[in-house]
Amino acid sequence: MPVGNVALPTMYPVKGVTIGVTAAHVRYPNRNDLVVFELCEGATTVGVTTQNAFCAAPVLVTRDHLAQSEPRYFVINTGNANAGTGELGMRHALQTCADMAALGKVSPEAVLPFSTGVIGEHLNVNNIKAGLPQAQANLADAHWAEAASGIMTTDTVPKGASEQVVVADCTYTVTGISKGAGMIRPNMATMLSFVATDANIAKPLLQEILHETVNRSFNRITVDGDTSTNDCCMLIATARAKQANGDTSLIDSREHPHFDALYAAIDRVMLRLAELIVRDGEGATKFLTVRVTGGKTTDECCQVAYAVAHSPLVKTAFFASDPNWGRILAAVGYAGIPELDVSNISVSLGDVALCRGGLLESYTEAQGQAQMNKEEIVITIDLARGDACDTVYTCDLSYDYVKINADYRS
Amino acid sequence: MPVGNVALPTMYPVKGVTIGVTAAHVRYPNRNDLVVFELCEGATTVGVTTQNAFCAAPVLVTRDHLAQSEPRYFVINTGNANAGTGELGMRHALQTCADMAALGKVSPEAVLPFSTGVIGEHLNVNNIKAGLPQAQANLADAHWAEAASGIMTTDTVPKGASEQVVVADCTYTVTGISKGAGMIRPNMATMLSFVATDANIAKPLLQEILHETVNRSFNRITVDGDTSTNDCCMLIATARAKQANGDTSLIDSREHPHFDALYAAIDRVMLRLAELIVRDGEGATKFLTVRVTGGKTTDECCQVAYAVAHSPLVKTAFFASDPNWGRILAAVGYAGIPELDVSNISVSLGDVALCRGGLLESYTEAQGQAQMNKEEIVITIDLARGDACDTVYTCDLSYDYVKINADYRS
Repeated sequence: MPVGNVALPTMYPVKGVTIGVTAAHVRYPNRNDLVVFELCEGATTVGVTTQNAFCAAPVLVTRDHLAQSEPRYFVINTGNANAGTGELGMRHALQTCADMAALGKVSPEAVLPFSTGVIGEHLNVNNIKAGLPQAQANLADAHWAEAASGIMTTDTVPKGASEQVVVADCTYTVTGISKGAGMIRPNMATMLSFVATDANIAKPLLQEILHETVNRSFNRITVDGDTSTNDCCMLIATARAKQANGDTSLIDSREHPHFDALYAAIDRVMLRLAELIVRDGEGATKFLTVRVTGGKTTDECCQVAYAVAHSPLVKTAFFASDPNWGRILAAVGYAGIPELDVSNISVSLGDVALCRGGLLESYTEAQGQAQMNKEEIVITIDLARGDACDTVYTCDLSYDYVKINADYRS
Repeated sequence: MPVGNVALPTMYPVKGVTIGVTAAHVRYPNRNDLVVFELCEGATTVGVTTQNAFCAAPVLVTRDHLAQSEPRYFVINTGNANAGTGELGMRHALQTCADMAALGKVSPEAVLPFSTGVIGEHLNVNNIKAGLPQAQANLADAHWAEAASGIMTTDTVPKGASEQVVVADCTYTVTGISKGAGMIRPNMATMLSFVATDANIAKPLLQEILHETVNRSFNRITVDGDTSTNDCCMLIATARAKQANGDTSLIDSREHPHFDALYAAIDRVMLRLAELIVRDGEGATKFLTVRVTGGKTTDECCQVAYAVAHSPLVKTAFFASDPNWGRILAAVGYAGIPELDVSNISVSLGDVALCRGGLLESYTEAQGQAQMNKEEIVITIDLARGDACDTVYTCDLSYDYVKINADYRS
């Protein structure tokens, strides 16, 4: 059961993006597992991919193709990550691009492949090839929700976010989907996320927007600290939103009058898509926001926040609703921050102050317990040595995390 | 249930060390929870302590006292770690030293305090004070096994190792105990370990022996990646072993004819005590040896080994006996090794080669399954880029780890 409200909102179509979904039997029968995105001519795509050295074949091909041309198709399969598959895996990823290119009458470099699922098994490319015409026949701009379901692995819910913002006489749409529930510590992007807007945003600026918003969202979440081999986040601008006079307005700088509202919408969609992954974290029963303030640098704030967010002892204490805040202190203490003066560090749960260096005499176990009983908890750690702050989002560690990951391949 | 044989061996007394054990009701009734070591005059003690910045009050006092004088008493309590307790915690630790010093007629600086248990609660020093005379009355050289039980927290078995080695006409004894099952990634020493020998070893050499053997044992184990606030490992040399002529032989260099045999015995005792902690790791069902070869440096070998040993996905796969080796590759890939050429990396389980870069065609799932079904598994990762190697010991991640840590304070 995911934590809190994770319902799909109204998923506004994005002009210039159509999506086809089908069941190609990549690994499991009777479920949609192949998704094709078709992007209009003139669309601009930027992307970030995993920093895992063992990145999967489709990630290598996506990087290569993205550097060569503007994509016209994404082909996304679930059930098999095509990772750890060596030369044959590369041939499989390229084969899928060639198959889609032939159907769509574009060059193979205009196709980006994405795979998610089990690592270390060869991909059934024949099934994917057989499914592509069905997916193509299914292309429609209304299929965002179906796509969100079609890319799921151990996710228990489809994940989507969508907004419309009106600036002057122009209505912009930002719509995206994400997937991922385990092997989540992206450090570049979530396992898979695809976000599109109909705005006309110059590529260098689109790249900046992606970089900045990913660093506040997908690069700030962790479920289990495992960085996937397949993480990718793509941001598409189709340039199809029209002003009243019928023209699109090219947004090529932060001074453009439409920039702020659009940037904020993309930022919210990214953060929501990232947060949904944590809310649906494998076995999650709590949504935890770890906020570190008073650091010398944002890097050290992140370092402390991740030490806390990755500690199995902290995570199991939250699962048990046990205000065992000593485990939080211990994690702060081993985060590896040089010259940390622990006597000034304070920790709060929600609005309850727990300690400053040592135990606060004002603190009572009942106060801590009341905070721990909540489903959504903000942990604030003040390092009291500077002005930097940063925030990481995570979930607790439950029996079900072990169960899901012990059973995943069976 | 711990993994493999963890039975206490014959615990040979060490001349010059007596041990008293009692129930002081520090936290729980009806169990021994207070242990006193009395060391003879002339004994030499060296120690290593946690690198956690939030180190507990007793650790600070131990460091301070150890720098000032040779210890004559250790006072060890379980049930409460006296960590995260601020100024009052310091006063409590010093109070216990003063109480023991008064009973033993030594200076307070000759007493080292050790605490283990729950973090963030104040220590009941009155109960400890009341227990000290009982522990003193109980002092005997045969009480190593009782001490091993008396320092347990979530340990399910007492942990001890003991050897006698005969060099020329001198018989040396090395005996030690350890405790710890969770919050284990020592990076200096295990939660608590006390090892004594009756050899006469010069202090600088004893310090070197401790440093080297700890770096191959306690500093190479991990259960959950959490570094405790209270880790301490003490090594004592009482100088009481006699040669046939009645003299002790001062071992003050590595060239001394007794050095090699004694060093090897201390090394084995340390490794066994460390290994026992992993075998009794919270919820452990498998004992895993992660061996990384072919690295440029031992540091990078350790970095890869710990990435694998800490990955919840790897650990749950071992719990499930699932040869999902893609998770091992993914962990190697995110270990953060610069310029890692993944195409040459090979991974083996026991004597079964799984992959070299990609999947090996020779590998069959049945071979992997046969290895995974074992209770003790060696994972070998060859980085194929140098001559360095290192080894880390860990266990799997099971339902019971979560259960133990979700229930620990209740």
